[in-house]
Amino acid sequence: MRQRVAMKVSNYVDTQSTEEVPGVFKREVITDKDGAPNFCMRVFEVEPGSSTPNHSHQWEHEVFILSGEGVVVGEQGETPIGAGSVVFIAPNEQHCFVNSSGKVLRFICLIPLHS
Amino acid sequence: MRQRVAMKVSNYVDTQSTEEVPGVFKREVITDKDGAPNFCMRVFEVEPGSSTPNHSHQWEHEVFILSGEGVVVGEQGETPIGAGSVVFIAPNEQHCFVNSSGKVLRFICLIPLHS
Repeated sequence: MRQRVAMKVSNYVDTQSTEEVPGVFKREVITDKDGAPNFCMRVFEVEPGSSTPNHSHQWEHEVFILSGEGVVVGEQGETPIGAGSVVFIAPNEQHCFVNSSGKVLRFICLIPLHS
Repeated sequence: MRQRVAMKVSNYVDTQSTEEVPGVFKREVITDKDGAPNFCMRVFEVEPGSSTPNHSHQWEHEVFILSGEGVVVGEQGETPIGAGSVVFIAPNEQHCFVNSSGKVLRFICLIPLHS
């Protein structure tokens, strides 16, 4: 019988961050290691002047901006984002998140597992 | 051929909220109507003294606390939560979110589609 998975409560800052590209830090706060069956949650911090890679892939992003300011760049141009912004990026859509402000741009980004 | 889905950028406050139970308001900020293929994002606001229903269901929750203070109640007891808390609730686990403070408890909660 599969082991019963229990609730996990943490603070995102307690998860070790890794520098994905220069100035972009990622924390994987909920993953399949916690028992997540379908999708996982990451928290990103982009330093002033930095940007996530401009790329596309087969899976979607569901993003919520926690703090800071910047732009999300898509195939139709760029759109300002700030605290409270919600961004859905469809599968195969080109995109990047640019910090155009003087403070850290912090956001949650969820992706499906096995992506 | 399936229509191409484009990026969606909004602010969560621009989504109409509905009162799920007294004192608990929900905004569905990313859903299958936006083209999301796997999971959807909701933003909840729980008024002081209110609580989400104490229930269980077959699908998981992935939660990030935006602001406010409270407790998440699970089968093993209750755990304090506040801004920056991350909560994974496994499928079939009993749970509720209680606002034990004097300010709104605001959090993101993601669930799989078709749940």
